[in-house]
Amino acid sequence: MRKVAGGITYPRGFLAMGAHAGIKSGSKKDLALLFSEAPAVAAAAFTTNSVKAAPVLWDIERIQSQHPLRVVVVNSGNANACTGLQGEQSVRKTVETAAQVLGVSRDEVFVSSTGVIGTPLPVDEVCLGVRQFAQLLSDSPAAGRDAAEAIMTTDTVVKQVAVELPIGGKVVRIGGMAKGSGMIHPNMATMLAFLSTDAVIDPLILQEMFQQSVAKSYNMISVDGDQSTNDTALILANGLAENEAIQLDTKEARDFQDALDYMNTYLAKAIVRDGEGATKFLEIQISGAESDEVARRFARGIARSNLVKTAFFGEDANWGRLVSAMGQAGPLDWTVVTIEIQSQVGTVQLMTQGEPVRFDEDWAKRVLTARDLTIHLSVGSGAGAATAWGCDLSCEYVRINGNYRT
Amino acid sequence: MRKVAGGITYPRGFLAMGAHAGIKSGSKKDLALLFSEAPAVAAAAFTTNSVKAAPVLWDIERIQSQHPLRVVVVNSGNANACTGLQGEQSVRKTVETAAQVLGVSRDEVFVSSTGVIGTPLPVDEVCLGVRQFAQLLSDSPAAGRDAAEAIMTTDTVVKQVAVELPIGGKVVRIGGMAKGSGMIHPNMATMLAFLSTDAVIDPLILQEMFQQSVAKSYNMISVDGDQSTNDTALILANGLAENEAIQLDTKEARDFQDALDYMNTYLAKAIVRDGEGATKFLEIQISGAESDEVARRFARGIARSNLVKTAFFGEDANWGRLVSAMGQAGPLDWTVVTIEIQSQVGTVQLMTQGEPVRFDEDWAKRVLTARDLTIHLSVGSGAGAATAWGCDLSCEYVRINGNYRT
Repeated sequence: MRKVAGGITYPRGFLAMGAHAGIKSGSKKDLALLFSEAPAVAAAAFTTNSVKAAPVLWDIERIQSQHPLRVVVVNSGNANACTGLQGEQSVRKTVETAAQVLGVSRDEVFVSSTGVIGTPLPVDEVCLGVRQFAQLLSDSPAAGRDAAEAIMTTDTVVKQVAVELPIGGKVVRIGGMAKGSGMIHPNMATMLAFLSTDAVIDPLILQEMFQQSVAKSYNMISVDGDQSTNDTALILANGLAENEAIQLDTKEARDFQDALDYMNTYLAKAIVRDGEGATKFLEIQISGAESDEVARRFARGIARSNLVKTAFFGEDANWGRLVSAMGQAGPLDWTVVTIEIQSQVGTVQLMTQGEPVRFDEDWAKRVLTARDLTIHLSVGSGAGAATAWGCDLSCEYVRINGNYRT
Repeated sequence: MRKVAGGITYPRGFLAMGAHAGIKSGSKKDLALLFSEAPAVAAAAFTTNSVKAAPVLWDIERIQSQHPLRVVVVNSGNANACTGLQGEQSVRKTVETAAQVLGVSRDEVFVSSTGVIGTPLPVDEVCLGVRQFAQLLSDSPAAGRDAAEAIMTTDTVVKQVAVELPIGGKVVRIGGMAKGSGMIHPNMATMLAFLSTDAVIDPLILQEMFQQSVAKSYNMISVDGDQSTNDTALILANGLAENEAIQLDTKEARDFQDALDYMNTYLAKAIVRDGEGATKFLEIQISGAESDEVARRFARGIARSNLVKTAFFGEDANWGRLVSAMGQAGPLDWTVVTIEIQSQVGTVQLMTQGEPVRFDEDWAKRVLTARDLTIHLSVGSGAGAATAWGCDLSCEYVRINGNYRT
């Protein structure tokens, strides 16, 4: 597998476009269009929030029908959630417009929205945008980047990545883009991720592999513990690489899974790194747990704790809060816990087998001044392990979220 | 029932003392002693965090044994949690000292700690304090207030309350004190509450009534969603009112339950009101749910959402976040939801039966400028209802918790 420059348009046959369509005020990009030249099998994961936005309800039907997809329309600036009948009608209008101007069936159109909840979607602007953008689709890297920029809300950096890998003598390409950033939490909360690939793969196998990858990536990140109404991760596979179809339990499947994991983890980490107001990037590594599931619970428990997050914002090696957060997440025998924090500055050992280490506070402070911190926690002698990613909680987060809507 | 001035020393036969014993730096009060002149039956609720502080482990045994209690020792400034064998020994030393100087058995001593996790308790200071304070115990209101002050950590106000009520021709008194303030969350997270009463009551009946009351009060508050290693709510009943023993399913039991609920709700609300850095006090009232349990889940889901909390900090009538937080907490049909926010300024209707109301933003802002806000949410036509209390999330919260330990 090789990481390459580019994003969603890197695989063969994927065209994109992103620009300002009039949903956001000012001239910020707010509408992205993605088009596959060949019908693409699709797999997706959606928010577990019981309140689902109108586009999510449409999309769930698309994925359940297993019908191939051709088009993805994504707008930022408005979530089209809690918008009632009007919201559903806006989805239908958008779908009809996209189907008409791109010459595909309505069943082949996937729609995503992100932004404020409960305000009617300016659907005329969206439809006019779709009409205009359809003429401007391009497979250039710039077009992919524009699309990645158009799906951003409070994000401060564009998030995209691309790889290629050999599969049975052919080169298969995967591209992707994502947006965060607030409300990110295990189980797909307020984030959008779109992957494209030219691999030939059965839709059920793709769904299986994609789900596994989502569980290890987007479901292991936390910015603020809230789940949104709109979260979606989608992958389209249009088969233009003409490889022999990927079968389960083969070297090809393992390579493709590794590539998917790399892509999704890359984007998930990029989302956390761009968490609203975040000043620290935390990688939480749990080992020695009873099972991977238990390890995941501990790792996520730490990633979502406000007290842990504020302590890291304050560059305070407050290991008590790490232990307490794990104890809240599940049954923990803290007397066997070992804790170590690592950064580019160095390493500080905080606890060894349940014994607090008398560490040098000045040294700990120095280690914690780095932006990227890895927290290693060994919780026993089991084989369970997991990694989660999180960020600190800063005043800036409070400022951004206290003034988001108005 | 009549609310009266006073606190933990108001009921007959309860003496207290609180002062500086040298656990905290400076001269802040950090040790409280409570003494009952007669053996008192006891009921308690403890943290559900799997990591429990040394004193909590001792106390759980006390309550399980159903042995009457005479003495409560509480220190602030140090949680004596994750302190290993040394922590256990510190509890034993404290208990032995208290038993010896007050002439009670060790089984009659209850111990609580609150403060930083993982730092050895300065047990010599605690024991010296217990020896000195034992000579200075008093049933005066001032002594009760000193005790309430000595259990505070980042609290900014003393929290105490007292009532009296007639039970079978006698006047029964109840007094109480509590401390918050950060880390407060449903299921008893980092808070201490102590109630005293001179009622005659069977310990099992007391436990039953106290548990019910805790579920409606301390378990319905949230400051930051984290649970601590030390949370404890305790009630002692020494029987000096000489009423006929309270029996279940009688008018007396109902009156006593009402009084307990009043006391616990009063203290729980005082804890939230004093939440770290809080600028808003939120009362969340859910009605129309399938069951009380579902209503409780919705109410707590709102109270703990960082996005809801930051929106209220920003005085933003962002009802989308209210709906999203409920949707995350359980299955919600948002198309029947009605939302209204009330303050002393007036009322603003945000949603009626799933229809967003076009409210005046300036008026909404004015309603939300008040410190105390009541959020009414009707979620259907069921009979389930619940009330939770929470606060906003401010920059001040981040500042306090980023610098707590150092």
